[in-house]
Amino acid sequence: MCFSTRKVSYSRVGQKLKPSAIASVMTTALENPNILSLAAGFTDSHTLPVLDVGNAVKDLLSRPGLPECLQYGPNQGRPELCRQVAKRLMEQDGVPFSKEDSKKVFMTNGSQQALFLATQVLCDMGDIVFVESPSYFVYLEMLKGQGVEARPLPIDEAGMIDHQSFERELIAMKQSGEINRVKAVYLVSYFSNPSGESRSEAEKVKLGELLQRLDEPIAVIEDAAYRDLYFETEYPARSVVSLDAFNGISCLYLATLTKPFATGLKIGSGFCTDQEWLKRILWLKGHHDFGSSNFTQAILETVFLDGGIDRQLGLIRRVYSEKMKVLHTALCEEGLVEIGWKWRIPLGGLYLWLKAPNSLDTRMKSAFWKACCCNEVMYIPGDLCYGNTMQCFDYVRLSFGVLNKREMVEAATRFVKTAKDFF
Amino acid sequence: MCFSTRKVSYSRVGQKLKPSAIASVMTTALENPNILSLAAGFTDSHTLPVLDVGNAVKDLLSRPGLPECLQYGPNQGRPELCRQVAKRLMEQDGVPFSKEDSKKVFMTNGSQQALFLATQVLCDMGDIVFVESPSYFVYLEMLKGQGVEARPLPIDEAGMIDHQSFERELIAMKQSGEINRVKAVYLVSYFSNPSGESRSEAEKVKLGELLQRLDEPIAVIEDAAYRDLYFETEYPARSVVSLDAFNGISCLYLATLTKPFATGLKIGSGFCTDQEWLKRILWLKGHHDFGSSNFTQAILETVFLDGGIDRQLGLIRRVYSEKMKVLHTALCEEGLVEIGWKWRIPLGGLYLWLKAPNSLDTRMKSAFWKACCCNEVMYIPGDLCYGNTMQCFDYVRLSFGVLNKREMVEAATRFVKTAKDFF
Repeated sequence: MCFSTRKVSYSRVGQKLKPSAIASVMTTALENPNILSLAAGFTDSHTLPVLDVGNAVKDLLSRPGLPECLQYGPNQGRPELCRQVAKRLMEQDGVPFSKEDSKKVFMTNGSQQALFLATQVLCDMGDIVFVESPSYFVYLEMLKGQGVEARPLPIDEAGMIDHQSFERELIAMKQSGEINRVKAVYLVSYFSNPSGESRSEAEKVKLGELLQRLDEPIAVIEDAAYRDLYFETEYPARSVVSLDAFNGISCLYLATLTKPFATGLKIGSGFCTDQEWLKRILWLKGHHDFGSSNFTQAILETVFLDGGIDRQLGLIRRVYSEKMKVLHTALCEEGLVEIGWKWRIPLGGLYLWLKAPNSLDTRMKSAFWKACCCNEVMYIPGDLCYGNTMQCFDYVRLSFGVLNKREMVEAATRFVKTAKDFF
Repeated sequence: MCFSTRKVSYSRVGQKLKPSAIASVMTTALENPNILSLAAGFTDSHTLPVLDVGNAVKDLLSRPGLPECLQYGPNQGRPELCRQVAKRLMEQDGVPFSKEDSKKVFMTNGSQQALFLATQVLCDMGDIVFVESPSYFVYLEMLKGQGVEARPLPIDEAGMIDHQSFERELIAMKQSGEINRVKAVYLVSYFSNPSGESRSEAEKVKLGELLQRLDEPIAVIEDAAYRDLYFETEYPARSVVSLDAFNGISCLYLATLTKPFATGLKIGSGFCTDQEWLKRILWLKGHHDFGSSNFTQAILETVFLDGGIDRQLGLIRRVYSEKMKVLHTALCEEGLVEIGWKWRIPLGGLYLWLKAPNSLDTRMKSAFWKACCCNEVMYIPGDLCYGNTMQCFDYVRLSFGVLNKREMVEAATRFVKTAKDFF
């Protein structure tokens, strides 16, 4: 039977939904298998932890008693895994771990689901979330899909939060009454997707102090998806949930367990300092799916306890550090800097964030985009990474996650060749 | 650190959310480990397919080439698994399978997520979904949480859809303009949770014809979570997606891959006959999680191709059929029928659906509920299974999924003892 044709009538959200930019990118890539993609934030397939996963499954399925890992688990997540996640976070932040901390953790279908749940619980259509410029484009798409405004946090020329301007803006909103629409500040604060930059502790503290002074019910969502993916050393900033400046402010810290391990397992986590918000997030999760896969959680729990997560991190930090250098070097050697492109060498993460010269338009369907497709190389256009009112058409995000080194050099060559045609 | 105390301000959905009834039940059960629970719809842990899962993982991880099962998969689901699901559905419905059918399938975090996505795409607050009486209580809770009215489908005394009354009601709504709020009809049509009843093909056909006559954009969601869990023979009714009466009507058919296999893997599926609706469901899924676990999907795909799903079904059909008989017989032998309780012997599913005598109030926190807790046996109060305006306080859902036979007999004894105290 073919698809039916009668139209159903959609909700306001249903009407607002649009395909993700990444879907268009993937479609283009599928149409031409010769394309080398520096677009998707997929991870390196050669280093996936086949042995660790295999051993964990063998261990889990050979335990005496009933195979509880194949049965439903709790909505909030496996208690031992929640405990491990809380403990790890407290260790990373260098603060003491207490039992209470485990109760703040919940497991989700990737940290993306935690973002969705937290946002739907807070935001109605027309509400506002402040985001960095640039920010994580999938979250920006989600906000748009839910009719929520992604308003740019004032950022200075060095890319730091401009606290003074932000405070002025918030006070003006307080006076106009618009402040009730402001629900959260969203930070991608460790080796950001896409910029690769991190927020210093001092910057976060100032933000916390500002929000304390403002004294409005505004939450802070800190997305730390790339925190573990540093190349040489950890980024030395505690998370908002461990900073005194955020005492009494509702904070949600997001991490992924599987991006730096095996994305196919698709488990993320949230750590929420506000019990009431957390409760509502979990009630909504009950409506989504009443719990993420207990089996993949059990695998992660086993690998965690066995030290496998840290082993894998040790491996992929070296691998991504090298892959970043390969891409960076290839771009340089092909002469991209000479024709005016600029980027900083990141200290972690999966991306190079390039600024094109001469306000080159890099948007999807731009002449440059089409030329790249023609030359069989793909990227994420930077304009996707900006909130509602920002217009930045001359950035490009390149991922060094997926391709192997040989492919990456070839992709860089194609990219620079195209860039030269536009110089 | 302890939980923070400042309140954030919630969205309209955030404010409406409530804990699931099942959470209260679980909490009560956790508080007293001696409680035997006939409440949760968990599955039998003794028959979980340890070997099949173990072999599938071994197979997947030893394949030559990159371990793609540990990498991200497509948002819509693994194409081969989608194909298998479509093919199986067409076989069950006895209609030819075409390639096009595979494109109608999408994989979700349990069929619960498919329900959420489909509903959020269709329904704003104040909209209406028609539901059976009784219906699946977790969906009713979700509708409430989203501010959507679950309006009872007119049902006759035999439990059949009263098409005449329904048509009159819809025509009246059309005349009053209220029809625009009606977004869908939701049917749990095979061995229903909670009633165990099924809808005949004739009943469905009449519904399709009625909706054709009405000619309004109303979708049909058919939840077939228990279709595979028959005891002796398949229920002889095709699904709405294969019935000519529903041609041109937007239909979504939901199935679970893991309820009759291993719930811990948490994968469900949707089959949507409306391309536009499906697109929007997938766009929203992109915001939820951009794809369910590729690893658990790969396991299911492997088991599917290997015949493991059918082997497992062959096993658990016998097991559940026996467990149902054990519970039914124990309730009878303890004398529950003599004191006026009534139920029908189901032909599949996981539940007995009991009507208490003398309008006994079985709601949570009722005297009967408390007495059951005291006597260390739990059930799902039937009132949770009714839409907004229905009041049915004298039903009880008992699950024969979880407990082993000895425990089930003991639970039945405790239940009947309590019932006798209220006679």
